Amino acid sequence: MASFPDGFGCFVANLGIKDDSDDLVVIAADVGCSTAGVFTKSRFAGPSVELSRERVADGRARAIVVVSKNANVATGNDGRRDAAEVTSLVAEQLGCAVDEVLIASTGVIGRRYPMERVRNGLCALASVASGASVERAARAMMTTDTVAKVAESAVESSTAQVVGIAKGVGMIEPDMATMIAVILTDAEVPADELDATFRRVVERTFNCVSIDTDTSTSDTALVMASGAAGSVRPDALERALESVATELARKIAADGEGATTLIEVVVDAARDWAQAKRVAKSIVNSPLVKTAVHGADPNWGRVAMAVGKCSDDTDIDPDRVVIRFGTDDVYPRPLDDDQLAALSRYLERDEVLIHVSLGTGDAFARVWGCDLTDGYIRINADYTT
Amino acid sequence: MASFPDGFGCFVANLGIKDDSDDLVVIAADVGCSTAGVFTKSRFAGPSVELSRERVADGRARAIVVVSKNANVATGNDGRRDAAEVTSLVAEQLGCAVDEVLIASTGVIGRRYPMERVRNGLCALASVASGASVERAARAMMTTDTVAKVAESAVESSTAQVVGIAKGVGMIEPDMATMIAVILTDAEVPADELDATFRRVVERTFNCVSIDTDTSTSDTALVMASGAAGSVRPDALERALESVATELARKIAADGEGATTLIEVVVDAARDWAQAKRVAKSIVNSPLVKTAVHGADPNWGRVAMAVGKCSDDTDIDPDRVVIRFGTDDVYPRPLDDDQLAALSRYLERDEVLIHVSLGTGDAFARVWGCDLTDGYIRINADYTT
Repeated sequence: MASFPDGFGCFVANLGIKDDSDDLVVIAADVGCSTAGVFTKSRFAGPSVELSRERVADGRARAIVVVSKNANVATGNDGRRDAAEVTSLVAEQLGCAVDEVLIASTGVIGRRYPMERVRNGLCALASVASGASVERAARAMMTTDTVAKVAESAVESSTAQVVGIAKGVGMIEPDMATMIAVILTDAEVPADELDATFRRVVERTFNCVSIDTDTSTSDTALVMASGAAGSVRPDALERALESVATELARKIAADGEGATTLIEVVVDAARDWAQAKRVAKSIVNSPLVKTAVHGADPNWGRVAMAVGKCSDDTDIDPDRVVIRFGTDDVYPRPLDDDQLAALSRYLERDEVLIHVSLGTGDAFARVWGCDLTDGYIRINADYTT
Repeated sequence: MASFPDGFGCFVANLGIKDDSDDLVVIAADVGCSTAGVFTKSRFAGPSVELSRERVADGRARAIVVVSKNANVATGNDGRRDAAEVTSLVAEQLGCAVDEVLIASTGVIGRRYPMERVRNGLCALASVASGASVERAARAMMTTDTVAKVAESAVESSTAQVVGIAKGVGMIEPDMATMIAVILTDAEVPADELDATFRRVVERTFNCVSIDTDTSTSDTALVMASGAAGSVRPDALERALESVATELARKIAADGEGATTLIEVVVDAARDWAQAKRVAKSIVNSPLVKTAVHGADPNWGRVAMAVGKCSDDTDIDPDRVVIRFGTDDVYPRPLDDDQLAALSRYLERDEVLIHVSLGTGDAFARVWGCDLTDGYIRINADYTT
């Protein structure tokens, strides 16, 4: 079981945002921490994102509040005031400055927090809700997630730990940390170095996950470093952060709404990383590829289609492309019925690899997604406003 | 019932490509016609697209062959030879030059035509299959389409007609005429003028349809003008072409795989047409918007999300955006339970309108798509290679 790194405490409670399950997480550091954040680029970003983006700009924070089951998005000036009030109430309870408190929120869009209940719950926070476990904190952030997402890694050559929690199963796509993730470490690291490292890590991990091509209004990935374990090697910290973020990203993909299969797509022999990622995303986002995997149908023609739709990549020549399911070539090698049957059995696994070599260079990218199922339709056709 | 414009005949037959339904359409003109074509930009475009793109470059053609149920894509040099042979056999039967024959194909990817059966069928073509109706030709092009798609329009101030047939229900998304459409007219029009007109029309019609964001390897839209009805006013011809192409585009969206609802998205008060179309596409392609419509859930927050994910459009300000379902404002106006119930009933219709005003200018775009249902999953998880 993961535990929080030195220097961090956690409060979890039910505020009654939607039902009687936990919906509030407060991560509180003993001292001001080096802190970095990456946020959605959505033009409809909510006040939680606006507030946290502004407050993290100086690279310092003391606490992070996560409110789940209500995104507080598209709620206008009322919503802005509500978000600010939540952080004030938390700052009061913790005895820190309000601009040291960050906030993240996911859930239904277009509805205000039930502020009376929020105020009542937050006033009693310190007395009723201290010492929550990492697992319980991860669980309290869940909306339609079915699994609490926790990952941890030691930082080599030090006593420092990295521990992360995340939520996210739908409205998940690129171009920002498309979910909520909070990563904590007791490593000592200057804020600007942490920021640069974290942006590189997010680009290779959370920004490589896609469930449904829909970008959330609430995406927030935060990292706080308490320094309690002293200084560490920067490359070791980056590896530990990447390990935790990769594990969380894979857990998000595997728990995609309605998903039964984690799809990993590797594109190599590409001109550059951007091309490899663009093609990999095109494959992992294709509804026709996703449904083929769901049906365990070795229909590699759809992978070819998804490569082909990257039409600006005019250096891609179909005669040089190789497509594999797992380690088996499926294009351009002709397949007999036994081989197709074996591929179909492969696609029934919980996790499948689609591997495409473009023949345009030697760059590489890896992304994660999931199959598209009846379950996704049910969850999202019935999820009520 | 539509009939072909003067100067065109049609042969329809079963070649045994997949089963015993019609799978071959040959449109034959009495004389060489002004002809224009718009094709997929896919890097995995098949030999039908390669051949037709090359042959239509001079603006003239005599015949169009459509082979359905097999796309002849990703079939290498064998596939290239097969496509060329099909056009040669048709040219022989019609007594015209091979480079006057265009070809289009859709269906399964990665499998060769059954060439023995194709040769046998094509040799007997003229004796067994002449005089097919427009409806039968449209039906012969179908793969998973459930409805034959035909549209017609008179050209004002002339006796000329425009008649179009199309197929397409999946692997449908932008950036080219993402399906097969053949439009015929007996208007007289120079090839370069027809080409320019047709490209404008395709941009406003077929390129505004999206079923599933997947771009086909086989997309082909062709127009032939026999000239039999004499010259016409250019603006009248453009309107008639646009009317036919719009009707076909709407029929494609309404017949989207598994679709139960045609979704029309109008974005106005936009900076320019490109911005309006980008935002409209983002909405109509959002799996979360599509499933909300399917569930008749007036979850306008997902429309806000889809507007927001156009993150490069930094002039979009949530405080100036207005969202409507049909003619009813849903954002930023607060809704009571009765209003939500009325919106839910509206979303149960066969055709719904989502109308967004951006407040960034006065440009306008309209696109079409469909809901995302269990039926889409079933069709595409079970469609066999």
